[in-house]
Amino acid sequence: MTTIVETYLACWNETDAATRRALLSEHWTPGASYVDPLADVRGHDALDATIAAVQAQFPGWVFSPAGAVDAHHNLARFGWGLGPAGAEPVVVGFDVVVTDADGRIESVHGFLDRVPSETAP
Amino acid sequence: MTTIVETYLACWNETDAATRRALLSEHWTPGASYVDPLADVRGHDALDATIAAVQAQFPGWVFSPAGAVDAHHNLARFGWGLGPAGAEPVVVGFDVVVTDADGRIESVHGFLDRVPSETAP
Repeated sequence: MTTIVETYLACWNETDAATRRALLSEHWTPGASYVDPLADVRGHDALDATIAAVQAQFPGWVFSPAGAVDAHHNLARFGWGLGPAGAEPVVVGFDVVVTDADGRIESVHGFLDRVPSETAP
Repeated sequence: MTTIVETYLACWNETDAATRRALLSEHWTPGASYVDPLADVRGHDALDATIAAVQAQFPGWVFSPAGAVDAHHNLARFGWGLGPAGAEPVVVGFDVVVTDADGRIESVHGFLDRVPSETAP
């Protein structure tokens, strides 16, 4: 599950559209859902558009893992940060990823722990 | 979503079998799943048996909410404690509850934050 979390964050950080799409196709189920306080999407097209929109909103920022991944069965919970590369994260969040029997991401339940007012939508 | 979390904990605390079964029928979907580090069950029969087993393991202990419920869309995350009524919780955990369009519990993703060695299975 630690690997799938790394892959998950790699999807969020992948700015090359074709490579990102390939990552989505390989590691997410076709009907995978992603829900966080600002998004509620399903399927590769919508996931791809959501990731691209966040990248456009915060150009050059990167997602990084925060703390350990706690995983069991088909579940993993973990924290993450978003901010300029190499700097203290500006946005801090927490996700639970659910995988299917093949280890592909089936759903993501996302929450936000720190959103500075200047980055809020 | 705060109400469903209260209902969820009420299910765990309900020691009357018929009342607990009625709570499950009313507030959980028929195929609802519950997964934590020690359990992976689906459906009212298995949910009921899992709750009854935990109650038998820790007689007189109660589940209580810990901290605020953070909810959006059909998701809620929250902490909980388990211990003797009115005392500091012995076991501390964290769950994400997912509801369906009717507000019934569809799945629970459970994690454990503190399990003293003497209570570990």
